[in-house]
Amino acid sequence: MNELGLDTSTILKWLVNDGYTVVACNIDVGQEEDWEDVEKKALAVGAERMIIRNKQKEFVEDIVFRSIQCNAIYEDRYLLGTSLARPVIARELVSVAKEFNCDFLSHGCTGKGNDQVRFELAWHALAPGIKIIAPWRIPEFIAKFQGRADLLEYARVNNIPVSSTPKAPWSMDANLVHCSYEAGILEDPNREPPKNLWTMTVDPVDAPDKPYHFSIDFLKGIPVKVTTEDGKEATESVELFKLLNKIGHDNGIGRIDVVENRFLVDLEGLTLDSKVRELRDTFVTTAWSRQLYNGMYFSPEREFAENSVIFAQDGVNGTVKMMAYKGNAYTVGRSSETSNLYSEEDASMDSLDTFSPLDTSGFIAIQAIRLRKYGEAKIAQGKTL
Amino acid sequence: MNELGLDTSTILKWLVNDGYTVVACNIDVGQEEDWEDVEKKALAVGAERMIIRNKQKEFVEDIVFRSIQCNAIYEDRYLLGTSLARPVIARELVSVAKEFNCDFLSHGCTGKGNDQVRFELAWHALAPGIKIIAPWRIPEFIAKFQGRADLLEYARVNNIPVSSTPKAPWSMDANLVHCSYEAGILEDPNREPPKNLWTMTVDPVDAPDKPYHFSIDFLKGIPVKVTTEDGKEATESVELFKLLNKIGHDNGIGRIDVVENRFLVDLEGLTLDSKVRELRDTFVTTAWSRQLYNGMYFSPEREFAENSVIFAQDGVNGTVKMMAYKGNAYTVGRSSETSNLYSEEDASMDSLDTFSPLDTSGFIAIQAIRLRKYGEAKIAQGKTL
Amino acid sequence: MNELGLDTSTILKWLVNDGYTVVACNIDVGQEEDWEDVEKKALAVGAERMIIRNKQKEFVEDIVFRSIQCNAIYEDRYLLGTSLARPVIARELVSVAKEFNCDFLSHGCTGKGNDQVRFELAWHALAPGIKIIAPWRIPEFIAKFQGRADLLEYARVNNIPVSSTPKAPWSMDANLVHCSYEAGILEDPNREPPKNLWTMTVDPVDAPDKPYHFSIDFLKGIPVKVTTEDGKEATESVELFKLLNKIGHDNGIGRIDVVENRFLVDLEGLTLDSKVRELRDTFVTTAWSRQLYNGMYFSPEREFAENSVIFAQDGVNGTVKMMAYKGNAYTVGRSSETSNLYSEEDASMDSLDTFSPLDTSGFIAIQAIRLRKYGEAKIAQGKTL
Amino acid sequence: MNELGLDTSTILKWLVNDGYTVVACNIDVGQEEDWEDVEKKALAVGAERMIIRNKQKEFVEDIVFRSIQCNAIYEDRYLLGTSLARPVIARELVSVAKEFNCDFLSHGCTGKGNDQVRFELAWHALAPGIKIIAPWRIPEFIAKFQGRADLLEYARVNNIPVSSTPKAPWSMDANLVHCSYEAGILEDPNREPPKNLWTMTVDPVDAPDKPYHFSIDFLKGIPVKVTTEDGKEATESVELFKLLNKIGHDNGIGRIDVVENRFLVDLEGLTLDSKVRELRDTFVTTAWSRQLYNGMYFSPEREFAENSVIFAQDGVNGTVKMMAYKGNAYTVGRSSETSNLYSEEDASMDSLDTFSPLDTSGFIAIQAIRLRKYGEAKIAQGKTL
Repeated sequence: MNELGLDTSTILKWLVNDGYTVVACNIDVGQEEDWEDVEKKALAVGAERMIIRNKQKEFVEDIVFRSIQCNAIYEDRYLLGTSLARPVIARELVSVAKEFNCDFLSHGCTGKGNDQVRFELAWHALAPGIKIIAPWRIPEFIAKFQGRADLLEYARVNNIPVSSTPKAPWSMDANLVHCSYEAGILEDPNREPPKNLWTMTVDPVDAPDKPYHFSIDFLKGIPVKVTTEDGKEATESVELFKLLNKIGHDNGIGRIDVVENRFLVDLEGLTLDSKVRELRDTFVTTAWSRQLYNGMYFSPEREFAENSVIFAQDGVNGTVKMMAYKGNAYTVGRSSETSNLYSEEDASMDSLDTFSPLDTSGFIAIQAIRLRKYGEAKIAQGKTL
Repeated sequence: MNELGLDTSTILKWLVNDGYTVVACNIDVGQEEDWEDVEKKALAVGAERMIIRNKQKEFVEDIVFRSIQCNAIYEDRYLLGTSLARPVIARELVSVAKEFNCDFLSHGCTGKGNDQVRFELAWHALAPGIKIIAPWRIPEFIAKFQGRADLLEYARVNNIPVSSTPKAPWSMDANLVHCSYEAGILEDPNREPPKNLWTMTVDPVDAPDKPYHFSIDFLKGIPVKVTTEDGKEATESVELFKLLNKIGHDNGIGRIDVVENRFLVDLEGLTLDSKVRELRDTFVTTAWSRQLYNGMYFSPEREFAENSVIFAQDGVNGTVKMMAYKGNAYTVGRSSETSNLYSEEDASMDSLDTFSPLDTSGFIAIQAIRLRKYGEAKIAQGKTL
Repeated sequence: MNELGLDTSTILKWLVNDGYTVVACNIDVGQEEDWEDVEKKALAVGAERMIIRNKQKEFVEDIVFRSIQCNAIYEDRYLLGTSLARPVIARELVSVAKEFNCDFLSHGCTGKGNDQVRFELAWHALAPGIKIIAPWRIPEFIAKFQGRADLLEYARVNNIPVSSTPKAPWSMDANLVHCSYEAGILEDPNREPPKNLWTMTVDPVDAPDKPYHFSIDFLKGIPVKVTTEDGKEATESVELFKLLNKIGHDNGIGRIDVVENRFLVDLEGLTLDSKVRELRDTFVTTAWSRQLYNGMYFSPEREFAENSVIFAQDGVNGTVKMMAYKGNAYTVGRSSETSNLYSEEDASMDSLDTFSPLDTSGFIAIQAIRLRKYGEAKIAQGKTL
Repeated sequence: MNELGLDTSTILKWLVNDGYTVVACNIDVGQEEDWEDVEKKALAVGAERMIIRNKQKEFVEDIVFRSIQCNAIYEDRYLLGTSLARPVIARELVSVAKEFNCDFLSHGCTGKGNDQVRFELAWHALAPGIKIIAPWRIPEFIAKFQGRADLLEYARVNNIPVSSTPKAPWSMDANLVHCSYEAGILEDPNREPPKNLWTMTVDPVDAPDKPYHFSIDFLKGIPVKVTTEDGKEATESVELFKLLNKIGHDNGIGRIDVVENRFLVDLEGLTLDSKVRELRDTFVTTAWSRQLYNGMYFSPEREFAENSVIFAQDGVNGTVKMMAYKGNAYTVGRSSETSNLYSEEDASMDSLDTFSPLDTSGFIAIQAIRLRKYGEAKIAQGKTL
């Protein structure tokens, strides 16, 4: 299991009371936690052990960078934050379970969301035959805990330490790439989110009045170096990602769109063949994103899609110069030493070297054959275009 | 022909000198022009008539609103500004040509760009059999005018009035939805555009420090009303569009992405069935955008795609509340009276009415059959996931 | 419920014994049944009423003809026979249930197949809120009937009439468009099906040695007339379909592929614009087929896809001349009076009217720009093509 | 250049008369030719050399087997026969041209077909910067040779040997995978092809009355062994292909559909994950087929698509048992030792091991949420489904 709030503590205690020996486990994918406190609490509630594993590097390199190569986006706006972390967490939980010879895997996901699906499908692929305990889908458990009051009462009776500060009226999912919220007062789509909700970005209104410049180097579609106007530099994957997050935070970027993902687009215009890009956009971007969203990371179809994207990104190498300002990241330049498909000379309307304007007449004439028939048919039918 | 700079004046004179009677024609799709001056100049150079037609309303209603229903975007970043206006201009030029019994249609597009393709393909469908004069693809014309010096010399000899201010080192295309630039110093993708290039937006740095709130009402996926915090309101299509442009201008929005197009996305999350949306995104968005970009507006395939999008948008009705600030447009609320697929109650994790958590166990189990086989096959092959 | 074998009789009795008043119902979609015998048996077992409805016409016109317009095929080989009939049956069962004020709908589908999914999803859309009894997923029912012996014993005790002839070791689904089989000895994919399995076709080996000629007229992509060499003619939808089935039967056609579906292909080559066809093939054929296969007929996405196909087929009018012989249907001619996009003159290599060979030079040159860069890059990398 | 009929001889002579030194070249991809005679004639007409290269093995292994892995088909019916051979021919012609230090490449394709596009696009990628002579698009050549009479007169004057037998009124393209015809009396789509046209198949009417059994072994989606009922066996790629052609010929198979291509389908049902297959069908099959058809074999997008298909076919290993009879090839069994995803036990409706029928209730319930809303909305709108 992952995280340790009132729900999770209750599940832990309930499992212990039911006779299970519990190895509690938390995977650090960049969320803010007081890990020492988490461990102390888990042991106090009754866990045999509390395992905490830092998987930030795997998260960034295996999954987040791949999502950048895919320009992954779900339903044309959702950048998949939660879904991205699930495969890394699921894989490490299986690894820990094997290490400690566990007979069961359990999680605290509610019975109505997508996360239970993502974890369990991953586990079925990673450890075929494993037995899974999903308390929020066990009739007796549901019957016992029908509301927050039941959980608090169970905590009181079982000496589970409960945070004295009242919980915010929403649940939160955070990792290196995002922090998202759901439930409670947020369910009304017509209500603006409360100011104090945002943890990863300052309000653009409060962001610096001065633009901030930095640049990103890409190799095979993956960011490999970030350099900033005030001399910061990062090349290691997690550090690099955290530096970008810091720039985003300070300048109020990403409250709606995680603009980082868009860096690539500009470089692809320079380095990726247009037809390969069309196939990648049509095929891989959508397919990979849906696979991640639906918990199908450990699947033959994800392997198939990923093989394509890695192939396509082989020449996406170069540097993107950026500027952050008041909620936006602006591209102010891009270049590629090795794979520049773009030629200033070709693009110039004055150059006649690569092809002749006369060629275009034939190009149009060939395509017009079909359209002329279409126009003639419309006229014959008495219709206008 | 459209527009009347040095190139166009030269073509006009050249046609006249070649013995043609020329009906000059300009279509107003929202670009800034001194139309009286244009007319005076055309007649002075030798046009028999100078026709100017305002087609802003047709442009917004027939094409721009359709592009919003499609979430149209080309190569995942280009909002199609130039391509969108071409069908309306091409259609009206054919209409004027028929009115004045013209035997030929001519345009001043260069021989290397996409615009010549767009105009001519449209004309072949709109007036099958029409003869087209494309001077920049006629060998004698090209031979005569090899650079700006040749054009200036021809102007001098033929008394063509030439603007005294030197032309900016780029060419520009403007209409209600965008203003784009190409050529000259802009060809280097690694150079930041000059400050004085931007005409439709103030620099975000200079935009007001205070957010500006407004709301947009949609009917069948089309904006039908804009209301602002300071009491402005627009319902007529062109006025509404110009009001949005004004908000965008004042707040520095759209220098990279024309964010208006993204308004819809939020309302669709509320009103559009997810599977219909997936089919629309996969099929119509890409197809319609490519058709427009490639000059295939007047084509059977555009009719086919458009029929689908209109069908899909039938229930996209409601209001989006927005806020403009320093280069960004933020959605702060959305609602739909008539077609709300979203239910606060369903989304709440506490409600157990619409389905039971236990159902999910079966949902996962059925999907896991295939994944378990996949995991078992990997184990048999000695591979890890 | 539909059909009335040992399983279904048992379910009927079990429901009656459990206190339900049962309105039994069978929908005739072209399968061979002794309907009088079915009714007599159902009443004997304890049904309050036995309703039999002939929905062949709706089946052919609403669904089968649509599948022909779609060229519908699932996974590139399965012609959807079973899935096609399900929407018509599901809709009529709901209609009967409402007529007799039933509180529940029940079916006899097994708990592991796709049919239960198809029926129940349809019912949820057609009668939101309806309650469904699926005996083969009720634990007590499953526990009681663990094999054929249990069913026979229950029949004996409850005086359910059981056919004296032993059942064939496979289950069968038949309707106007197909007859398919599953289970038992057929599960081995490496075994040739037994000779006596085929009911809708003679063995090609035994089919007539003489080819048989006939022709089909299409309107908007739908067959409207069949005429045969021996003077038969059919225009009414079901009659026409049965005449085609008779031709197929006598000549041993369709044991692997239902070749009828391929008739259209030839006519489309003549009447359907190539780009519309490409969009229809890519988008509608696959989407519609998957929707039907997965039980998603009554869904927003099927409405969306169907709207497209009807639009695309508007001009698919004409006649296809066919010949049946020894297991194959051969197209021997096709023509269209009204919408012939194909021109003998254009296709002839001698005609130079519609475009000039010289145009092709330009067409190639424009496309070669990108390929030359590709070739140059390969050379620079020391790779061969 | 390839082939050597009246057209080609004329072009050869015309080039020689124009001062070119000509290296004539024919690529053998399985067409029937008297190669010695071809060489003698070419030298007589004036070629410096006549090069004949057998590229059957490359053709089968590089291209045809790939098309089988793709299930490649264009517009849902055309098996790409001509297009498949073009890349192999184009590549070898470039290779010969380099060997003999040629400055130009020439071909005899007409100016209106697709083949000129295929050859020239390939050459631009294979030898960027190469100069191409396409006589049928050179104005003087077209003007000189306006009909067959002009060609015959030129042959008489220049002593070009002309076959005494009158040419069939159609042109033909043949290679190992197909023989197709066009022009002349075949242009009327409503006319049945003449009996004497067929060279690769006997008339099904004349085919043996007895079915003929054989089996094909596949490895990674590629046929590696053919075994027949009368003891023939082939494992080498070209021999294997010719043996299949012989079976097809003798039994009248493939006059409409080259049924061989369909062998794979059956094995894929056994060995290819359904979702990977869906992605391959949607993406690769169509893309690869269009690339080949449009002459885009030597292109970045073909590389991209091909990388995917090879990945997908890794586990398509096994044997398909076939029977040929009177124009059809029937699959009578299929098996796979190594990658059988299909389990008789799973498919059996009696087995309850892998999942429980109860799981399906949840599977349906989750999917029904959306459909119930859809049904409710229809009812609210007063519409029926």
